[in-house]
Amino acid sequence: MTSAESEIALKNANKQLVAECYERYFRDGDVDAVAQLIHEDFVQHSPDAPSGRDAYVDHLKHAAFLGGSSAVKRIIADGDYVAVHHNMTLPGDTGAGLAVVDLWRVADGKLVEHWDVEQPVPEPSRVPNGMF
Amino acid sequence: MTSAESEIALKNANKQLVAECYERYFRDGDVDAVAQLIHEDFVQHSPDAPSGRDAYVDHLKHAAFLGGSSAVKRIIADGDYVAVHHNMTLPGDTGAGLAVVDLWRVADGKLVEHWDVEQPVPEPSRVPNGMF
Repeated sequence: MTSAESEIALKNANKQLVAECYERYFRDGDVDAVAQLIHEDFVQHSPDAPSGRDAYVDHLKHAAFLGGSSAVKRIIADGDYVAVHHNMTLPGDTGAGLAVVDLWRVADGKLVEHWDVEQPVPEPSRVPNGMF
Repeated sequence: MTSAESEIALKNANKQLVAECYERYFRDGDVDAVAQLIHEDFVQHSPDAPSGRDAYVDHLKHAAFLGGSSAVKRIIADGDYVAVHHNMTLPGDTGAGLAVVDLWRVADGKLVEHWDVEQPVPEPSRVPNGMF
């Protein structure tokens, strides 16, 4: 494999890993499966959420968004980094939910670092083409 | 060039294009230079901002963030898409500013579509490792 082919293979593997995490968590509610995909040395940059695999898994088991939905709109991957643009809706929320971009760094085939930005999806009149 | 090499060359060119836009806009305040890098058929998904190159350029000339600063933390590019994670501070804001992810789609070597998510950077005690 050439270095260019290796780079693309890595990117695609990382994309697949991250997509699987969202499916396991939001579609299946299977936090134990997600736990297998989180690196022991996990570093957190999201407000009010912990670093460390075990603490983060515990957080995920009690998070406000567990049991909610996530519609993944696009995944952008480059080197060790993966960006996920998705529309997250909390359980019981009948509104338009949140626009979220999660950024993940992958190491050793697992999620090792996380950043995010989120905002409520505004009323449609403010975004004629939609937030996504 | 192999297809893998072409894909990586495209990604790097798109990354460079987007980085240049942020430098021209935030560092140089040169909206006319940015205008040259926006596609005529520009489509907007950011709240309260217009589609169309000319309307968007006019918006950029009067935007609240013109004259502010943007510290780009990372750029992630994949195919036609580029994600920019940055810390934007409005003119006169002495606080921690906003955490922003802008997503851009590139066509014909220009920015043709834009989505974003932003939130205020919370107080440090809520993010021990920082938002970035």
